[in-house]
Amino acid sequence: MKMIGPSLMCADLGRLVESVQTLDQGGVDFFHFDIMDGRFVPNITMGPDMLKAVRPYTSKPFDVHLMVEEPDRFIDMFADVGADMISVHAESKSHLQRVLQSIRDHKLKAGVALNPSTPLCILDYVMDCIDYVCLMTVNPGFAGQKFIPSALGKIADLKSKIQASHMDISIQVDGNISYATIPRVMEEGASMLVCGTSSLFMQDVNLELAVTRLRQFCHQ
Amino acid sequence: MKMIGPSLMCADLGRLVESVQTLDQGGVDFFHFDIMDGRFVPNITMGPDMLKAVRPYTSKPFDVHLMVEEPDRFIDMFADVGADMISVHAESKSHLQRVLQSIRDHKLKAGVALNPSTPLCILDYVMDCIDYVCLMTVNPGFAGQKFIPSALGKIADLKSKIQASHMDISIQVDGNISYATIPRVMEEGASMLVCGTSSLFMQDVNLELAVTRLRQFCHQ
Amino acid sequence: MKMIGPSLMCADLGRLVESVQTLDQGGVDFFHFDIMDGRFVPNITMGPDMLKAVRPYTSKPFDVHLMVEEPDRFIDMFADVGADMISVHAESKSHLQRVLQSIRDHKLKAGVALNPSTPLCILDYVMDCIDYVCLMTVNPGFAGQKFIPSALGKIADLKSKIQASHMDISIQVDGNISYATIPRVMEEGASMLVCGTSSLFMQDVNLELAVTRLRQFCHQ
Amino acid sequence: MKMIGPSLMCADLGRLVESVQTLDQGGVDFFHFDIMDGRFVPNITMGPDMLKAVRPYTSKPFDVHLMVEEPDRFIDMFADVGADMISVHAESKSHLQRVLQSIRDHKLKAGVALNPSTPLCILDYVMDCIDYVCLMTVNPGFAGQKFIPSALGKIADLKSKIQASHMDISIQVDGNISYATIPRVMEEGASMLVCGTSSLFMQDVNLELAVTRLRQFCHQ
Amino acid sequence: MKMIGPSLMCADLGRLVESVQTLDQGGVDFFHFDIMDGRFVPNITMGPDMLKAVRPYTSKPFDVHLMVEEPDRFIDMFADVGADMISVHAESKSHLQRVLQSIRDHKLKAGVALNPSTPLCILDYVMDCIDYVCLMTVNPGFAGQKFIPSALGKIADLKSKIQASHMDISIQVDGNISYATIPRVMEEGASMLVCGTSSLFMQDVNLELAVTRLRQFCHQ
Amino acid sequence: MKMIGPSLMCADLGRLVESVQTLDQGGVDFFHFDIMDGRFVPNITMGPDMLKAVRPYTSKPFDVHLMVEEPDRFIDMFADVGADMISVHAESKSHLQRVLQSIRDHKLKAGVALNPSTPLCILDYVMDCIDYVCLMTVNPGFAGQKFIPSALGKIADLKSKIQASHMDISIQVDGNISYATIPRVMEEGASMLVCGTSSLFMQDVNLELAVTRLRQFCHQ
Repeated sequence: MKMIGPSLMCADLGRLVESVQTLDQGGVDFFHFDIMDGRFVPNITMGPDMLKAVRPYTSKPFDVHLMVEEPDRFIDMFADVGADMISVHAESKSHLQRVLQSIRDHKLKAGVALNPSTPLCILDYVMDCIDYVCLMTVNPGFAGQKFIPSALGKIADLKSKIQASHMDISIQVDGNISYATIPRVMEEGASMLVCGTSSLFMQDVNLELAVTRLRQFCHQ
Repeated sequence: MKMIGPSLMCADLGRLVESVQTLDQGGVDFFHFDIMDGRFVPNITMGPDMLKAVRPYTSKPFDVHLMVEEPDRFIDMFADVGADMISVHAESKSHLQRVLQSIRDHKLKAGVALNPSTPLCILDYVMDCIDYVCLMTVNPGFAGQKFIPSALGKIADLKSKIQASHMDISIQVDGNISYATIPRVMEEGASMLVCGTSSLFMQDVNLELAVTRLRQFCHQ
Repeated sequence: MKMIGPSLMCADLGRLVESVQTLDQGGVDFFHFDIMDGRFVPNITMGPDMLKAVRPYTSKPFDVHLMVEEPDRFIDMFADVGADMISVHAESKSHLQRVLQSIRDHKLKAGVALNPSTPLCILDYVMDCIDYVCLMTVNPGFAGQKFIPSALGKIADLKSKIQASHMDISIQVDGNISYATIPRVMEEGASMLVCGTSSLFMQDVNLELAVTRLRQFCHQ
Repeated sequence: MKMIGPSLMCADLGRLVESVQTLDQGGVDFFHFDIMDGRFVPNITMGPDMLKAVRPYTSKPFDVHLMVEEPDRFIDMFADVGADMISVHAESKSHLQRVLQSIRDHKLKAGVALNPSTPLCILDYVMDCIDYVCLMTVNPGFAGQKFIPSALGKIADLKSKIQASHMDISIQVDGNISYATIPRVMEEGASMLVCGTSSLFMQDVNLELAVTRLRQFCHQ
Repeated sequence: MKMIGPSLMCADLGRLVESVQTLDQGGVDFFHFDIMDGRFVPNITMGPDMLKAVRPYTSKPFDVHLMVEEPDRFIDMFADVGADMISVHAESKSHLQRVLQSIRDHKLKAGVALNPSTPLCILDYVMDCIDYVCLMTVNPGFAGQKFIPSALGKIADLKSKIQASHMDISIQVDGNISYATIPRVMEEGASMLVCGTSSLFMQDVNLELAVTRLRQFCHQ
Repeated sequence: MKMIGPSLMCADLGRLVESVQTLDQGGVDFFHFDIMDGRFVPNITMGPDMLKAVRPYTSKPFDVHLMVEEPDRFIDMFADVGADMISVHAESKSHLQRVLQSIRDHKLKAGVALNPSTPLCILDYVMDCIDYVCLMTVNPGFAGQKFIPSALGKIADLKSKIQASHMDISIQVDGNISYATIPRVMEEGASMLVCGTSSLFMQDVNLELAVTRLRQFCHQ
């Protein structure tokens, strides 16, 4: 089964409750929050108060993607406002095993996010500490970028690595997840789709229709 | 005349358009956006896309308070989404005169923001490059802190400094601006009031009423 | 009355309890711990566990001098092991007023430490948040350096500044405090003397004798 | 033959000479010094002067574990006070090959230390520059943490890697090395045991007895 | 065919045009510019204005080797002054795939430079984004260092990796490329030789003769 | 008497010896080298090898202006290649008094450079450690910028400060020093003129003529 998670940085930030409710009713499986510090990536989007503001309007899991340096300084903060899953970048400054363990100590699911160029060996000794890997299929920081072709082979490589480890780890993909790329990433082994401007938040389709259509496409 | 500017990080972040419209109709004079990078201050709040989302709903000036390291990397970004005024912290890593000039090169008003402990001599050679000074009356980073008493004397000192310079520079105050502190900061010379949880966004008063009451209080 | 505080980084680090007991019985007024992070200053000396190890052997105040970047990350840690006073460098990366307040929130005395070149205006708006100023009379980082002559005028300037503020703030001096410099720093207004290899921990005098002699010299 | 090295940050820091003498007579094989900068790890412990203070009391090798950013700035300093072996973290900011070579240029043994999550490929092109690898079996920074299970497989992997390289490289393990974990790490290939609060410095056993018992256990 | 590229930081910096003309006529294949920021490596050499100054005097490709942190901040700058190829260090702070793509977006050849200790897995998912790999055969920062022996095996490993990828990627070697090392690096698969004080810019041979002799040696 | 110093970053970098010789014969008083690290300022220009290359061709003083973070790491390097004077920025990360003392320990003249916005109080306790102050009259980093008007008052303020200190300190000005600005900066008290594209290195005047004309203008 595939899971669909809207990237809320692509939603109408002026009416976030409304978007969350539409998406919740439309059957999305989780909500994805892109947290940026203007340093690990050259943009800033939203913070913990944003999660707090919409937490009462859905019971679906909140997935926090920390695109920040020193992510360990932010775990408590996002756990407190209702995160259910947190992923941290392997490339950011941290002691990776410690920060993953600290996420799990909060009883949350822990993930590692990887930039397009990052090799998978970085996961060699944390396979037992993670619930999911977020593979960036564009470079993080902005919406509307092109899918990086080598990401497909990377999904396949990761799937093999997970199978070899006998662990239960999901593959999340993030970046230009569209009707064109979904079949391909699913075929390679991705099961959690972070959906933004390429499939859900589109100029010419209303959100209710977009989410229905996307679910049908993914679950057919 | 005093100017009132709601600090939007204290508004209902799930229904920001609604809050902006209520505040606009309630007669606020500008909107204040607190931008944090999790490094200059230990929190993250909102980014340029948030300004973009609410820019169509009011014609009042947007005042961006950059609580970030290396603010020069963010000037273009916020100018592009509709900022009218930008203040940068004198304590952040930057060439202060250059970043102020770059704000003015965008035809925006330029401000310097000062932490509670920062001495005013930092302004000695930028008085001709600024339109306002944002004096923090709490330490920046979070809502709901206590007013720092020495800030009152600092407002008075700044007023003297401005008068001596014969420049037209406004004094903005930011942090625990409440019914208790407003008369005192106004008496010392503040003319732009950044209003958050202490005067506008209160649990037990609806926003429409709160803004009306605050305007009456300030403009009586 | 002058207060004498041995700089424990100059003591016999292999027999610290013994040194602390000798100094305690010899009548020193406080113990000074130089904490370095190898970054704010190019050396590393000791950490919180060292205070913990000797805390049971004296009831005199422990004065922690944080020569570190981002001192706010270390306040809890040193409060927990028995610090009574903590000074932080104005030149280090921090929000100065916040970190001073956080020291006082732990019911400890708060100090600001200043490098030889740092101007006193840095203290303009924190005079009401501090109990003492630690004026470095050498550049921090190592024992055995020469007294910087301009420090004498700086002590006098600081004394005037304190008197003008009507606050109760002590002047601590740190760096090459010797029989030659003590009369001069005392004359200018210093009341807390941090004593190291120039007056207490000397090759050719045993510690018991050295402390007795120093007390007599200072209190005559 | 297994080598036992007490982690002196766990010893009685107020009476270090005494502890060093007891351990020396008890037959430990080397002394391990954990040097922290409060930045690479969130703690500070001891510096070069501590080695200097105890260097006269034993002729056993001093093993310096640099848990610091930019370790190249500290090599001279620790070589000067009597280090015999220095390990630097592969995750810290440095040119790894250069800093290892600089350790060897001082005629000292050079080691690479690895955090629990760090993959072994980081060693691919430095196998000819190192005498030992320090595998962290907890996250570095504090005593008293739990052994990380995946470390066992990592020891085995490292042993294979060393054998394939035909180099003479020892495997040092550091972190919760106890009576429970020693047989397992030894079985996988560890030959240098850094021993702290889990096996040597225990509340209820005196140090003389503890070291005797540990040696018997390891060398039986 | 082997390509020879003089490292201009080793040329007579007071008469650079003259050196460039001699080298151009002598038949070098490209010019190599070592750009250092005093941080990624502990030296500073030259900047974009140097390329601009000599760009009119040769039509051979300019190869810029960015030994800097955050190389993405320098791509535009060097593209503007006439660079044809730019390599960035995988160890520097950047999003590697993004910066490589940005080099190619300028229609320049993109390279990854690797320090002696850096494992090749770092290239796993950027093989389709690069035209060349610059393998450092000394630690970067200064001329006149010794060739690192493990570099030979690394060239061979890289050659295998490139062949397995079916990509067209050149291997550039940089550091102590001399008459002694050239045959060995060529045998292993290097095709672009960065030549400095060990083969081209020698005290006792004039440059015209040196370049002729080197070409004959490489191309025989 | 006024001193003229060409800023060599504005000279023909491909024929530096020639430019230095022309300027030497033309009677300039010193040579000014702008050293940038791409971090303190967003550009990189030249390093110590450039000084070394032209040092044999003139006996006039070499004045090194370090626009770098952590300038203490570069003092030895520039002293070794023939610097006679070194200025460091007060805004850069350093212990200012220590780095100034270290310049003087090399028997060189020590200067403090100040960005346009930096207040003069930063000099309060280093007046006895400096031989000159380099006042930036543009923001540092690039040639060809506009003169910042508030710099004139700052020169005057500095002159008063120097007179009050009874020290022998020269005022150097750097940035858009042209025929238009020279009379004004001289009138306020500047005595060392750093001359670049606005007065010496001009498109339409040859260097020999330019230097003659400039000397006549300054010394009339």
